[in-house]
Amino acid sequence: MAQETQEGVTSKKSRLSEWYNEITVKAELADYSAISGCMVIRPYAYAIWQNIQSYFDKRLKEEGHKNAYFPLFIPERFLHKEKEHFEGFNPEVAYIERKDEKEERYALRPTSETIMYDSYSKWIRSWRDLPLLINQWCNIVRWEVKATRLFLRTREFLWQEGHTAHKTKEDADKEIQLILKLYLDLIEGEMAVPVLKGMRPEHDKFPGALYTLAMEALMPDGKALQMGTLHNLGQNFSKPFNIKYRDKNEKEQHVWQTSWGISTRMIGSLIMSHGDDKGLIMPPRIAPIQAVIVPIIFEKEKAKTLKEAGRLNDKLSEKLRVELDDRDGYSAGWKFNEWEMKGVPLRIEIGPKDIKANQVVVVRRDTGEKKTIKVSGQLENHIHEILEDIQKNLFRRAKKKMNDNIVEVKNYEELKKAIKDKKMVKTVWSGDPKAEDKIQNDTAANIRLIPLKGDTPKGQCVVNPKKKAKHIVYISKAY
Amino acid sequence: MAQETQEGVTSKKSRLSEWYNEITVKAELADYSAISGCMVIRPYAYAIWQNIQSYFDKRLKEEGHKNAYFPLFIPERFLHKEKEHFEGFNPEVAYIERKDEKEERYALRPTSETIMYDSYSKWIRSWRDLPLLINQWCNIVRWEVKATRLFLRTREFLWQEGHTAHKTKEDADKEIQLILKLYLDLIEGEMAVPVLKGMRPEHDKFPGALYTLAMEALMPDGKALQMGTLHNLGQNFSKPFNIKYRDKNEKEQHVWQTSWGISTRMIGSLIMSHGDDKGLIMPPRIAPIQAVIVPIIFEKEKAKTLKEAGRLNDKLSEKLRVELDDRDGYSAGWKFNEWEMKGVPLRIEIGPKDIKANQVVVVRRDTGEKKTIKVSGQLENHIHEILEDIQKNLFRRAKKKMNDNIVEVKNYEELKKAIKDKKMVKTVWSGDPKAEDKIQNDTAANIRLIPLKGDTPKGQCVVNPKKKAKHIVYISKAY
Repeated sequence: MAQETQEGVTSKKSRLSEWYNEITVKAELADYSAISGCMVIRPYAYAIWQNIQSYFDKRLKEEGHKNAYFPLFIPERFLHKEKEHFEGFNPEVAYIERKDEKEERYALRPTSETIMYDSYSKWIRSWRDLPLLINQWCNIVRWEVKATRLFLRTREFLWQEGHTAHKTKEDADKEIQLILKLYLDLIEGEMAVPVLKGMRPEHDKFPGALYTLAMEALMPDGKALQMGTLHNLGQNFSKPFNIKYRDKNEKEQHVWQTSWGISTRMIGSLIMSHGDDKGLIMPPRIAPIQAVIVPIIFEKEKAKTLKEAGRLNDKLSEKLRVELDDRDGYSAGWKFNEWEMKGVPLRIEIGPKDIKANQVVVVRRDTGEKKTIKVSGQLENHIHEILEDIQKNLFRRAKKKMNDNIVEVKNYEELKKAIKDKKMVKTVWSGDPKAEDKIQNDTAANIRLIPLKGDTPKGQCVVNPKKKAKHIVYISKAY
Repeated sequence: MAQETQEGVTSKKSRLSEWYNEITVKAELADYSAISGCMVIRPYAYAIWQNIQSYFDKRLKEEGHKNAYFPLFIPERFLHKEKEHFEGFNPEVAYIERKDEKEERYALRPTSETIMYDSYSKWIRSWRDLPLLINQWCNIVRWEVKATRLFLRTREFLWQEGHTAHKTKEDADKEIQLILKLYLDLIEGEMAVPVLKGMRPEHDKFPGALYTLAMEALMPDGKALQMGTLHNLGQNFSKPFNIKYRDKNEKEQHVWQTSWGISTRMIGSLIMSHGDDKGLIMPPRIAPIQAVIVPIIFEKEKAKTLKEAGRLNDKLSEKLRVELDDRDGYSAGWKFNEWEMKGVPLRIEIGPKDIKANQVVVVRRDTGEKKTIKVSGQLENHIHEILEDIQKNLFRRAKKKMNDNIVEVKNYEELKKAIKDKKMVKTVWSGDPKAEDKIQNDTAANIRLIPLKGDTPKGQCVVNPKKKAKHIVYISKAY
């Protein structure tokens, strides 16, 4: 019997950053690669990504979106067509050594607006062709110079990017609201990660956009993690890319566009939002394995125990993502630790005693609660209910943590103290970018979001009391 | 009413190559892009690819394979580790301008053996870690210099690549046989494209492999189209990449490996195998749209007709991929042409007369056969049966065409004539690469496959009658 022991894990509370790196590697979500700044997404994390994809892809299609695939390469001149867009991405763009016949450089896509809209200008002719609702699942290259953080900052990542074209600004605004809803259903509903949503301040919007909406999750260290962004591009791309349609009066109009994306980066929030000192905790709806069956083996009754465990596995597998851990050479305790590290929401133990009593023992990963359940025709429903309860509990817990980590402040001293205390700040701001520069210089935090609706800002700007407050804002450091 | 007419289509029989390019663009499968040598995969073709993915991904997982994602980039020195591998791919490799800290060049993956096996050497420790069964869905870059053919030859394409590690050569051989079966189920069963399968001659195997199996579809012009390949890599990579496991006797052994892939190239075979002068013909099991409902509108009864068509659509959509074409401003005839171009297997017409008679008219895309069917509780089953019959008919038709295009020859003159007549040749060969060089020089054809089993070769080599025949071989030109 090859007994192995798991090493201790760094404390999440005292050293979040080390804990994150350690858990991500130990739970076999990701690994460092031979390419500096790039990661390997291991099967366990890729399964999470596939669950995210299959949920979101279905929702998008129900709303009339279709997938397509555009080239990885973008001619350099395309990037130049929208000035702000080029300046925003230029420092991170990687080019290939091969050039085209005219000696033009090819970039690896940092985002696909320009290569896609070149095609859109050929495909869109009349109002009948609108809206054009296209989505792409692909890899993206942004040559980051800061140090790699698995999932959070890598030179290549996977994402979806939606790119739509509409007849009017209103249609584009509606699309943004629709997709925001789908994103929230995914992130809060399936991943159990609560987010703040709002508008990016003017100076921090997507290069080339009219406006940018963003969703931010708040990590235990008070830093925001961007979960996704949505841009109303207005006609800023349709004009340089010449994307025009003939309206019902046969008049030529430029289209209105949106783009929006979420990426494998979100997996980082899953780890940090839910995990504890024993490892990951996976929300059941997105978990690659929803329940693991661990047979409790006594040598004399081994065959019978394995047979019953196998039957249980067959039964539960019909509707749930279940794994039977019947590996030889590992003790039950060792297996418990391993599946706790991997964050499987529910462990189901079955041993000779349980078989005699026609029962199983279930242990929740989120609370550690242990319970005995009779094996009956209702077992599947029962387990499904527990999983749904875990899902709700994880969201509730994360939401409470988020709210506890947001502090409303009235003056600049309070703001500085709150940021130092690893909190996110809710306050009011004049709208002056210089005020934000000051915050950034003094605290390394910046304005993350302006809430979409809610209270009207009152009083004076938190930075400069001489100026009237114009926006409610959330301020924090960010990943 | 905006009446538009479809332009005529080039004849498939007389000008296959022009027909192919025209149909591929007109049916909106793909488009040329601003990047020379790269294509845009449009939604209709991407939906085919997603159907292929979802079928094959499920089968792979049932057999214990898991997906992962490795970096797009490969350090140049990795490519050098297996000499044949490097020499085979080097002419087509693209590198990026950015270099690492040690000024090493990064290649864009032409295939991922080397970057993946670097990780495998870290992950595999004991016999318990084997078999390691990993698959990757990703984009691939091979800088082709020949002219682009949509789907068939582009500088970037999408594929899956499986990479497995085993304890013994026998285990690796078994894996190859298993995957070959899954591939055949996909290609012949779902895509209705018949293939020849066999071994590549020694001098034409994958760079670095012990042996390579391939599947070849035969196109109407007598040219073979490679549908996928499978390689037993032996220990050729595990030695330079140092992938070792400790066996049950605690002895270190190098693993045995396989790799195998299929790509978006296969979509080219779907087009050429089944299409006709009216456009594509999609096999129902892989078709993005299995049936299209076209309401026959008479202005007076428009509302009622659309309502009934909508009900029919709701009903059929439960189990089939159905689309209702209720677009205004296009005549029924124009719509018929469009859906024929797109190769939708079944058209369902419903007009005022049909509604009165409680029936629909169905028209098969493969035979043009028109039939009236009563609307009843059995309608769905009925339509499902017709679709299955179309599926079988397409395969039967394609298989007959393939067999008719293979000629058995007894001497070199017959061989040359058959290739000139756009046939594939079945004959016998000594195994001497020089004989193949001669065939290649004289006819531009080459040895595609050596069948895995069957008759023993008899007589003398077709090229050099002085030498004894060693292999039965299939010879043709190739895409």
